[in-house]
Amino acid sequence: MKVIVDAFGGDNAPVEILKGSALAAEELSVQITLVGNKAEIKKAAEENNIDISSMDIVESGSIITAFDSPMTVIKSKQDSSMAVGLSLLADGRGDAFVSAGSTGALVVGGTFIVKRIKGIKRAAIGTLMPSAENPFILLDAGANVECTPEFLNQFAIMGDIYMRQIMNVASPRVGLANIGEEETKGTELYQEAYALMKEANYNFIGNIEARDIPYGKADVVVADGFTGNIILKTYEGAAGALGGMIKAMFKKNALTMLSALLVKSGIDEFKSKMDYKEFGGAPLMGITKPVIKAHGSSDARAFKNAIRQAKMFAEKNVVAEIENNLPIPKSKSNQE
Amino acid sequence: MKVIVDAFGGDNAPVEILKGSALAAEELSVQITLVGNKAEIKKAAEENNIDISSMDIVESGSIITAFDSPMTVIKSKQDSSMAVGLSLLADGRGDAFVSAGSTGALVVGGTFIVKRIKGIKRAAIGTLMPSAENPFILLDAGANVECTPEFLNQFAIMGDIYMRQIMNVASPRVGLANIGEEETKGTELYQEAYALMKEANYNFIGNIEARDIPYGKADVVVADGFTGNIILKTYEGAAGALGGMIKAMFKKNALTMLSALLVKSGIDEFKSKMDYKEFGGAPLMGITKPVIKAHGSSDARAFKNAIRQAKMFAEKNVVAEIENNLPIPKSKSNQE
Repeated sequence: MKVIVDAFGGDNAPVEILKGSALAAEELSVQITLVGNKAEIKKAAEENNIDISSMDIVESGSIITAFDSPMTVIKSKQDSSMAVGLSLLADGRGDAFVSAGSTGALVVGGTFIVKRIKGIKRAAIGTLMPSAENPFILLDAGANVECTPEFLNQFAIMGDIYMRQIMNVASPRVGLANIGEEETKGTELYQEAYALMKEANYNFIGNIEARDIPYGKADVVVADGFTGNIILKTYEGAAGALGGMIKAMFKKNALTMLSALLVKSGIDEFKSKMDYKEFGGAPLMGITKPVIKAHGSSDARAFKNAIRQAKMFAEKNVVAEIENNLPIPKSKSNQE
Repeated sequence: MKVIVDAFGGDNAPVEILKGSALAAEELSVQITLVGNKAEIKKAAEENNIDISSMDIVESGSIITAFDSPMTVIKSKQDSSMAVGLSLLADGRGDAFVSAGSTGALVVGGTFIVKRIKGIKRAAIGTLMPSAENPFILLDAGANVECTPEFLNQFAIMGDIYMRQIMNVASPRVGLANIGEEETKGTELYQEAYALMKEANYNFIGNIEARDIPYGKADVVVADGFTGNIILKTYEGAAGALGGMIKAMFKKNALTMLSALLVKSGIDEFKSKMDYKEFGGAPLMGITKPVIKAHGSSDARAFKNAIRQAKMFAEKNVVAEIENNLPIPKSKSNQE
């Protein structure tokens, strides 16, 4: 298993990326190919005592920044660490690619360099999220702000396969994020998507109200990229703000600090359940090879987990499963 | 101050509505006019020892249920407690109207029976929400799933006035809910709304990422009704699910229960900060008279707070302020 790593993506590149890669090489027995400026990589590894002796390094030129337009990756910055890494993946010189760089650029690069699966209209970002019960996947978490009902239906198909293959859920409950349970709720897009989805082969449980999402009432939550991103970030923000308030409550004085000790195991359990870093990265769903987006603020552990995510995505043949389960090409080939 | 009350709206009508009205009559020195089936109201009051002796009762026929289409209120159920109450308000037989009934019907009834303020394109539901800092208003929280940039700009104007008049915020920070801070983020609707809003007279702070909303980084959060409802409910759901997990953590055993005692004041503070019932109802913004939507599951206390909200909305002349601050009619009159 060979994972290609964008050594210059994200807020903490290259040091945390290198540390995470080293952890992955050690713990997950994967082979790592780093992409970036060789001299800088070697310098950062040396200064921070990171063992990269087992890793290949492929030289690249520029770096895609948060300020670059997503199209840069296939235009002026084709020599960037992200573009070069994606090209290596497309050429079969690795089994998966992981980057903590710009989401927009990764979507464009994944789509045009690695290419979409035949029949898939749009790549989507699938984000695994914690709930009061089990984790669920939300897609699209931000790749496509404008969607058609068919896109949403395909997001559902891909999310269903992800939860089966990677999370071992036998019959994932697929819900359409909406503002009410009734079929007539929401915009035209959502009403038409509902009509398509209720005829589909996956286990469609209808609309899921946003209120029910954090309780884990669906294993796959489908939304357009704008709405999905709003759900993801409202949830993240609420968890962060509430967590902060609770932390402050425990830090008030000696008695409250004693109190924190008494519930320490509960707090630890809660933290680990809600910790997005445990989930690793967000897969770019609908691309012909595994491309994983690590959180922009990934530290070494989060990045290592993104590499684990990439490894599982490759091992469990998610791409092939999507190819085999797309209803559209199937019915076409029947007619031939 | 006379507040008209829909005695048959919401999940807990009529008992909790009557109890809440009695509390309001006593604590807030408002005069209450109940609308509903007189015989049932009297029976419920008697059976539950609720003192309604100071209240008028206006007879109505049917009840709008959660299953009725919103248009029912101006069509087949013009004799409903909601429609009759709104007509009383339109006729000047009270200063404000409060209902815990169907949101959709209240929006339609408010718009067509009480009427929109001249120049206002759409009524919006403004929901006051808790944050890690101060409460903020989110609008539209669900009245209009399809919006134009002009609607969003008007929501901003109304929210700004609400926070000034009711919450005493001197210069409310108005943010446009979006998936990124840059002006070019989001759908066409959001990009065009941004362009309009940055020219406006209120204190526009640009796009606010959903992640920052729970931290209280804006006093007014503007969104279309679909997105606003998703934000509201994801936030509610996240707070509920996380609150439940923390509660379970404290209930585990004797030591954790002792721990809960030690942080009791902190927990109480946290609960009261996050308690939507404290905020009372959601005003229907853009209507010529105060119309307040109480939460469907309101108990007596929540309903009393909705009546307090109605009273303040009337006393602080929010409607007149909106009329005076609409930029469109103003510039027209200048040209005359």
